[in-house]
Amino acid sequence: MITPSKKAMGIEYAIRDVILPARELEKKGVDVIRLNIGDPGKYDFQPPEHMQEAYCRAIKEGHNYYGPSEGLPELREAIVQREKRKNGVDITADDVRVTAAVTEALQFVFGGLLDPGDNILVPSPSYPPYVGLVKFYGAEPREYMTVEENGWQPDIDDMRKLIDERTKGIAIINPNNPTGALYEKKTVKAVLDLAGEYDLPVISDEIYDLMTYEGKHVSPGSLTKDVPVIVMNGLSKVYFATGWRLGYLYYVDPEGKLAEVREAIDKLARIRVCPNTPAQFAAIAGLNGPMDYLERYMAKLKERRDYIYKRVQEIPGISAQKPQGAFYVFPRIDERSKWKNDFDFVMDVLHEAHVLFVHGSGFGRAGDWHFRIVFLPPVEILEKAMDRFEAFMKKRLAE
Amino acid sequence: MITPSKKAMGIEYAIRDVILPARELEKKGVDVIRLNIGDPGKYDFQPPEHMQEAYCRAIKEGHNYYGPSEGLPELREAIVQREKRKNGVDITADDVRVTAAVTEALQFVFGGLLDPGDNILVPSPSYPPYVGLVKFYGAEPREYMTVEENGWQPDIDDMRKLIDERTKGIAIINPNNPTGALYEKKTVKAVLDLAGEYDLPVISDEIYDLMTYEGKHVSPGSLTKDVPVIVMNGLSKVYFATGWRLGYLYYVDPEGKLAEVREAIDKLARIRVCPNTPAQFAAIAGLNGPMDYLERYMAKLKERRDYIYKRVQEIPGISAQKPQGAFYVFPRIDERSKWKNDFDFVMDVLHEAHVLFVHGSGFGRAGDWHFRIVFLPPVEILEKAMDRFEAFMKKRLAE
Ligand SMILES: Cc1ncc(COP(=O)(O)O)c(C=O)c1O
Ligand SMILES: Cc1ncc(COP(=O)(O)O)c(C=O)c1O
Repeated sequence: MITPSKKAMGIEYAIRDVILPARELEKKGVDVIRLNIGDPGKYDFQPPEHMQEAYCRAIKEGHNYYGPSEGLPELREAIVQREKRKNGVDITADDVRVTAAVTEALQFVFGGLLDPGDNILVPSPSYPPYVGLVKFYGAEPREYMTVEENGWQPDIDDMRKLIDERTKGIAIINPNNPTGALYEKKTVKAVLDLAGEYDLPVISDEIYDLMTYEGKHVSPGSLTKDVPVIVMNGLSKVYFATGWRLGYLYYVDPEGKLAEVREAIDKLARIRVCPNTPAQFAAIAGLNGPMDYLERYMAKLKERRDYIYKRVQEIPGISAQKPQGAFYVFPRIDERSKWKNDFDFVMDVLHEAHVLFVHGSGFGRAGDWHFRIVFLPPVEILEKAMDRFEAFMKKRLAE
Repeated sequence: MITPSKKAMGIEYAIRDVILPARELEKKGVDVIRLNIGDPGKYDFQPPEHMQEAYCRAIKEGHNYYGPSEGLPELREAIVQREKRKNGVDITADDVRVTAAVTEALQFVFGGLLDPGDNILVPSPSYPPYVGLVKFYGAEPREYMTVEENGWQPDIDDMRKLIDERTKGIAIINPNNPTGALYEKKTVKAVLDLAGEYDLPVISDEIYDLMTYEGKHVSPGSLTKDVPVIVMNGLSKVYFATGWRLGYLYYVDPEGKLAEVREAIDKLARIRVCPNTPAQFAAIAGLNGPMDYLERYMAKLKERRDYIYKRVQEIPGISAQKPQGAFYVFPRIDERSKWKNDFDFVMDVLHEAHVLFVHGSGFGRAGDWHFRIVFLPPVEILEKAMDRFEAFMKKRLAE
């Protein structure tokens, strides 16, 4: 037997790990309602027409070559304009790097920043690669708590306790996956202040930035005076193009503290050659183009958010914060006597009610005794899922 | 100043590193003939029509979602059929993983196999990520010699000397970048035998497999009886779709020795979500579709290969092996008194003759005092480049 790398074997990815038991059931002919993957493209959402057309046009016009490793100049300029409109940041195309979705931006940032022995602050709960990738690079993800009662805002005091001389940065995900939290301006400000105190960069995942229901997203990039910020964003959520695998990162670094980190990231970018070329033309069309589709899509999502939140509130044994952004709700299991843990709970729901959630502990320790529901499907499907789930909970709690 | 990761800073990528000085010249208005990047899409080659159409159709038909992390089942089946036709391998879709080009396959294989302290045998000279990526993962690339006088075939004795208890595999690139070598069947067989002796997997980069001029490519996958082989291939070269960033790997592992490595690679695949979805439909069309375009394109390439080889033979002070595959020739600098090293030579050619090559040492130590010429452009351009280069050499040698 040939032994694999320990680093790779250490990776867990809860969101996809619950799929295997669901598939087993489906093989037996069971109709499972999957509310586990954050992919609008699986439901009634598509990237807008003008992006689809630009993508095809690029292919037909022969833009099928290797592009520059930092991304096409026109796209980097479109990103600058988009981010100036959204965040008022003072950047140029030189500060922007195009990536194969936010996933690759994370690889670049963690890979360019972290050596074995280093650590980085990541939210708990959080999108699993924040823990998995950091570990794969031999570094330590330190999970800071976000406070459920406070709408899952980060706990700044907890962050402070985790910082030591090997800490290389503070990552925030806002709007958040899995909690649906939207951070208040004062929270973002407090994160920046803390980072400034310890001379750390803030890494800001803004993939859901325009997907908010009540408030508006505030980027640390728009507030910083001296603290270096690396912003990551992409086409997957706000532009509904998950399968196109395109994203970007940029540096807001008024004092040039990231000069060497930028060089390291450029080396990682060169060694992987380049991102998909025709998809970059789609991105140009998307970032420069009309956003009316987003209004229509957000109206649908708000209806679904309102519906799921109402249902979850009525179901006994659980409780939830109202999601302010993204398309997740992250309820707490209050009645715990029937299950060993949240994974046991999710498997019970799967096998009895045939509804697939993701167990909260898969998102880090603050996710214990929680579970994530994706509310992307149309209300009819959510209704069927919640009917099944409600009946299941009533039955279990009566046992 | 925030310090970058040492691992990332250690990466070198010669092919793209020569671009900066060329850009400086171009900014001054100089017309540089770039023969440095192996990208057919920059010249008169395009992915075939039926692939372009399948790509667009997938976008228009809504295949823009996250796909399975292992790749679409239809594509994995198309890969099985393609590889059965080409290599007669006995595999199923379950043995295949779709990747964001061979680059990501390399990340998966090295990432899934290597821990810090491990080493892996890579060819010298070789495509630079074989050294750079292995180092980035904290492991040691051990360069085995390939023998110029013997048509750049691997030196099996040298391979043997490099193996120790921390060796995790033997990588071969065939047809080779940068040498254009095509390995004989007996060489491939000898590599397999050696790997078998030490219980190592063979990692086979076959990205140029159908791009041969005289002989035919032989895969270790088609010869192995018990030695595990990981084959990597993709759309970039044979399908002329470099910018689409799509590739694959598969396991030929008759005795199941790679079970754990496969699991590690699947973890890496899950954490990066999935490859581009609509591009996978283009790949299905390409792998299942007609190959007449390849005949036409190979006829053009052969003409260019013949031309460049003739010219290189006539130019004083250098000599070269005739490329049998891919689109590179890798001449040796025989007359060395005029330059400090091959990089100095390439920079001199750039600044004096305005032709851009890549220095051989950028491909590893066996590349010292060599340089790589990409012969993708039409003969008229190659002619202009060789005229300039020949005049330069005559002048320098007369000095
Ligand atoms: C917070 C967060 N970051 C990054 C990603 C990955 O997105 P991409 O498709 O851009 O790789 C996701 C996907 O769900 C996410 O929720
Ligand atoms: C030998 C070899 N392997 C891999 C690659 C990378 O190809 P891809 O475009 O599939 O990432 C190249 C590109 O030139 C190559 O020459």
